[in-house]
Amino acid sequence: MTSKNSKGLVLGVDIGGTKVAVGLVDPGGQILTQGRQPMVASGTAEAALEAVTRAIDSVLPEQAGIQSIGICSPGPLDPRAGVVLNPPNLPCWRNFPLAEKVAAKYGVPVKVDNDANAAGLAEWRWGAARGCRYVFYTCIGTGIGTGIVLDGRIYHGKTGSAGEGGHQTIDYHGPVCGCGKRGCIEALAAGPAIAARARANLKGKLARRSAILDLAKGNVTSVTSEMVGQAYATGDPLAKEILEETVALLAAWLGNMVDILDPDVLVMGGGVAAMLKPFFAEIKTQIPRWCVNPKAAEIPLLMARYGADSGIAGAAALCAEDAPQILPGG
Amino acid sequence: MTSKNSKGLVLGVDIGGTKVAVGLVDPGGQILTQGRQPMVASGTAEAALEAVTRAIDSVLPEQAGIQSIGICSPGPLDPRAGVVLNPPNLPCWRNFPLAEKVAAKYGVPVKVDNDANAAGLAEWRWGAARGCRYVFYTCIGTGIGTGIVLDGRIYHGKTGSAGEGGHQTIDYHGPVCGCGKRGCIEALAAGPAIAARARANLKGKLARRSAILDLAKGNVTSVTSEMVGQAYATGDPLAKEILEETVALLAAWLGNMVDILDPDVLVMGGGVAAMLKPFFAEIKTQIPRWCVNPKAAEIPLLMARYGADSGIAGAAALCAEDAPQILPGG
Repeated sequence: MTSKNSKGLVLGVDIGGTKVAVGLVDPGGQILTQGRQPMVASGTAEAALEAVTRAIDSVLPEQAGIQSIGICSPGPLDPRAGVVLNPPNLPCWRNFPLAEKVAAKYGVPVKVDNDANAAGLAEWRWGAARGCRYVFYTCIGTGIGTGIVLDGRIYHGKTGSAGEGGHQTIDYHGPVCGCGKRGCIEALAAGPAIAARARANLKGKLARRSAILDLAKGNVTSVTSEMVGQAYATGDPLAKEILEETVALLAAWLGNMVDILDPDVLVMGGGVAAMLKPFFAEIKTQIPRWCVNPKAAEIPLLMARYGADSGIAGAAALCAEDAPQILPGG
Repeated sequence: MTSKNSKGLVLGVDIGGTKVAVGLVDPGGQILTQGRQPMVASGTAEAALEAVTRAIDSVLPEQAGIQSIGICSPGPLDPRAGVVLNPPNLPCWRNFPLAEKVAAKYGVPVKVDNDANAAGLAEWRWGAARGCRYVFYTCIGTGIGTGIVLDGRIYHGKTGSAGEGGHQTIDYHGPVCGCGKRGCIEALAAGPAIAARARANLKGKLARRSAILDLAKGNVTSVTSEMVGQAYATGDPLAKEILEETVALLAAWLGNMVDILDPDVLVMGGGVAAMLKPFFAEIKTQIPRWCVNPKAAEIPLLMARYGADSGIAGAAALCAEDAPQILPGG
């Protein structure tokens, strides 16, 4: 049964390999209350489910009910059935009917999707992509996740695995990505790739002098992408070069995305996107060089509304999506 | 006014830079009568339109009317408005309202789209992709055109320029494509790239012996991709290597397409696709190595139903599409 209430609150749940973050979200996309619990990823399926329900219970309003629950989970998963298939970082769940289990416990409709798809939907519903029909969203951090939202619905493709933009190869001969492919944009431009590029420039016979190394207290191996961003802010030339190279790679990749999808907006979120904010104009300038779309220069490139909360907001946005939900008892 | 008739015939028009091909197409996608006229591409807009109507008139049935007319034209064009924008190989037309002009002359609804989009739709309607919801179609010949058909409608994106899969870069440092980008799959795997790879192996100090050169009568500069295909058929090792390299590049590219679109079918047409028919199983085997989609190995890779007639069939398929048409008088 759906317990409707006047406030129209929904609950967004963001499951990761180590934590479960939850938030109560109002109809305007405002996150009102947040909670966080450790995830229990390597035990039984039921123990992991309990970690999730513990997090939900921590923010569930005592008086008013909630309309529905949205959940972001690591993939692969089947968003239509609400089943988590076999995520590498959630060994607890194999073909686990997460939506059905949570719906049964709380008596409200539940939807499940991956974090980037959901975050893209939140940007369409409440954020930078409001009013857009063809949305390409990307979250660039330690990985690169992407989501495609068409006419207000996540584009899932046949099996629910569509929109994997982070693993598009743009460099056939490039470095091997964690996924096994070569030259994925994730392997070239996510946080670890930025840090690796810095480290390569800071060691050996041709080592460069840079504020990055000072930030790492002289320890090359502890250099992070955040340090590159901090060094750039102080005018460090090596940091600037590294970020410019990242920008060029992202422009080539986004050019591909524009040519295949012809979106009306590009939205970027995540820690690396925040670090690259000073380069947004440059990325936008370079994208048309990697496009045959004659209107490519007119496509806005916008910073996402949601940052670290994108998983919670995205999960909540799923509840409002005009698409099948998993109802309690079926 | 739409002049309906019992046969339900539609007229498909395929406009190129040098010719206009037309065909009467029945409701089963059978091309009944064909005609062909020279295109007048560099004169006035009206002279070019006359070349098109001359071709149409050559096959128009004397007794029965036709239901509607579909037209493939070189792009860029605006498929929603039926306006041809500024194709490099049709200098006659600049912002030319082709659909409106043809609709006014023949008194039937008219639709206009680019050839690969239309050919993809024909495969969905009558060909290899019948019954599929998420179709990725590609025509590989002297160029690589692609079309995306979702739920029986061409995916156009915001401006009508979506589905430009042939200009996806997969090699950031690769050769410059005719479009100006680097490493587009068209620059790596279309006919001219195959011929160029053969020529590079047939000249200079490290020149290889090959049946390809015999087919070219010893003249390296006259080597074509067709000769590579013919040499392969006779067991020529160099031709085999060249086609295997082409196959590997196409697999990487199709892997990208699978990861972004999660289609239920991949359809390949065009002269190079026909030449690569013996390698379809190998392409299908290699695609999952370039995919994170866990079901990638299950996606069929099929030869298109339509070959040289794909433009006519595609144009005819546009008439049957459930999407806005340009009606006579508005």
